[in-house]
Amino acid sequence: MTAPATASALPAQTDAVVIGAGPVGLFQVFQLGLQGLSAHVIDALPQPGGQCAELYGDKPIYDIPAIAACTGHDLTERLCAQIAPFAPAWHLGQQVDTVAALDQGGFLVVTARGTRLHARCVFIASGVGAFMPRQLKLPGLEAFEGRQLHYHLDDNTSLAGRHIVIYGGGESAVRQAIACALAPEAIRAARITLLHRRDVFDAAPKQLDELQALRAAGRIQVAIGMPGRVVQQQGRLTALELTNPEGQAVELPLDMLLVRLGLVPRLGPIADWGLQLERKQLVVDGATFATSTPGIYAVGDAITYPGKRKLIVSGFHEATLAAFGAAEWLAGTRLPLEYTTSSERLQTLLGRRG
Amino acid sequence: MTAPATASALPAQTDAVVIGAGPVGLFQVFQLGLQGLSAHVIDALPQPGGQCAELYGDKPIYDIPAIAACTGHDLTERLCAQIAPFAPAWHLGQQVDTVAALDQGGFLVVTARGTRLHARCVFIASGVGAFMPRQLKLPGLEAFEGRQLHYHLDDNTSLAGRHIVIYGGGESAVRQAIACALAPEAIRAARITLLHRRDVFDAAPKQLDELQALRAAGRIQVAIGMPGRVVQQQGRLTALELTNPEGQAVELPLDMLLVRLGLVPRLGPIADWGLQLERKQLVVDGATFATSTPGIYAVGDAITYPGKRKLIVSGFHEATLAAFGAAEWLAGTRLPLEYTTSSERLQTLLGRRG
Repeated sequence: MTAPATASALPAQTDAVVIGAGPVGLFQVFQLGLQGLSAHVIDALPQPGGQCAELYGDKPIYDIPAIAACTGHDLTERLCAQIAPFAPAWHLGQQVDTVAALDQGGFLVVTARGTRLHARCVFIASGVGAFMPRQLKLPGLEAFEGRQLHYHLDDNTSLAGRHIVIYGGGESAVRQAIACALAPEAIRAARITLLHRRDVFDAAPKQLDELQALRAAGRIQVAIGMPGRVVQQQGRLTALELTNPEGQAVELPLDMLLVRLGLVPRLGPIADWGLQLERKQLVVDGATFATSTPGIYAVGDAITYPGKRKLIVSGFHEATLAAFGAAEWLAGTRLPLEYTTSSERLQTLLGRRG
Repeated sequence: MTAPATASALPAQTDAVVIGAGPVGLFQVFQLGLQGLSAHVIDALPQPGGQCAELYGDKPIYDIPAIAACTGHDLTERLCAQIAPFAPAWHLGQQVDTVAALDQGGFLVVTARGTRLHARCVFIASGVGAFMPRQLKLPGLEAFEGRQLHYHLDDNTSLAGRHIVIYGGGESAVRQAIACALAPEAIRAARITLLHRRDVFDAAPKQLDELQALRAAGRIQVAIGMPGRVVQQQGRLTALELTNPEGQAVELPLDMLLVRLGLVPRLGPIADWGLQLERKQLVVDGATFATSTPGIYAVGDAITYPGKRKLIVSGFHEATLAAFGAAEWLAGTRLPLEYTTSSERLQTLLGRRG
């Protein structure tokens, strides 16, 4: 990322930095709050929810305890509501670059956008990595990134008078096409084409119905084919050359190409922080979820321990024990277990008492 | 318990017996269901929910992931709804007596009421033990149990014309007094006295308000004092002698004494099954939640492992890994992780597909 630094040179102080705003990172904030520890949350995505909201935002999850069914978005909303009393500071749309232990204790955490935080302890809840858009690799295409090639589009970007091609067959491509078609008329694209290698789209039934209706109304076109080559004239991207299902090369003219091939996780710089790894997973102590560096804890899909299963229900447990682990490490003493049902202290922290 | 055997001599066959119907036992049924394993559930209490519903049925719990607040009853209802697709067989109001390994494999599980089950594996989710009513110990009182002394009352028991004394200061005593006062007139007691050592009751605000209203209306009397002696005439319990706050002995006449001093957990016969214990906790493998006896798993507050905290959130994780542990042990092979969001097999098991 090339955005300028947005924070002052003096780092903000916090008890904890939580890296990753997926369900487990969010619940980590909650458990830290119950320990009386404040948290800043960093995530590469522009909104909380992580993989859960990105990859199955509108798809039902059936194995969250005591919630018979909820979508990834529901789960995220519920967790955000639960952690609201602890008012974490959010640093979204930015990846963590460095986590460095400081001589005076604690850690300096710096993001690619220049946010600097001084934390007493760090919680890695980054799942399988920072979710970055899967890129379309075609000779010469990269040069158009940020001009005619985009991987993300703000809702209020004007596409008036232009032909936008959205490439992808999954939920994010379908959602994007629908959003473009339903945009206010003043900024709506002149023509919207959804491009996929075949005429089958993988999204929630409600969205597929909506897509079908918009296709029937002529507001979304569907093009079938595999992009093979970019066509440019005088420094402008003018078309993609596709191979259609019959094996013929056809040109799809466009003004803007929005690639929505989903997200791919990248472990990224975490691999460089000197933490013990085993098959690209962080090795943790299953009692405290401490990594090999004292003060750095890790939970969720990024970690390994005997019996580990990459399930949200396990992440919730891990976040709970990690919060105890850190609180006891910071306090230098064993802390008693209290229950939210009976503890006045916890209820006060939760804002449930006058 | 002295109730006669209710089951035939031939034990019912099941994949799993889950001992304990608290939140963790209920979620154990769910996770077993996802593994394609059927379950029978046994609990000493007459309804599911365990400690959670008994001790804080109407009190809010704030630390269940993604549920900002719910009562013990809410949580139980939610879990029962979640496990409904797996239709477990219930054996409530009965304690497990024996769990014996069989030569031909599996276990014979027998309850105090004579229910006999033949299970491929057993899950102990009994928390701190079977919850039994805390008894009132007074010389000569025990002889009246089942006649004039009760620890539990069915809703439709007629108390017409009688003076019932309910002894206790907690939620169950308060609920019972309210229930008696609101019973249909035909079976309602002539006089209802709530006896406690002081005029302070520990129950949810709504119930305290209701109690106050019924006291004001003269439908519930409150007596303050400590029972010290039973008064009997011709083999009938006629009164309790109390020591009142002024230190004087006073007699409280009664026809029936209902003792509601809450429940006390008793580890009970589990201690006799030859499983490895450490400070009265079952020792388990934190990867599979297997006890020292192959085929017997344990989860929740009954167990110990490094880092163990007696929290429901941890019990949910433990139940999940225990289900994997048992399924792999039964299958004799490592099983892949599937997600309810994407697995047709799991969705079919959950009844979410045609």
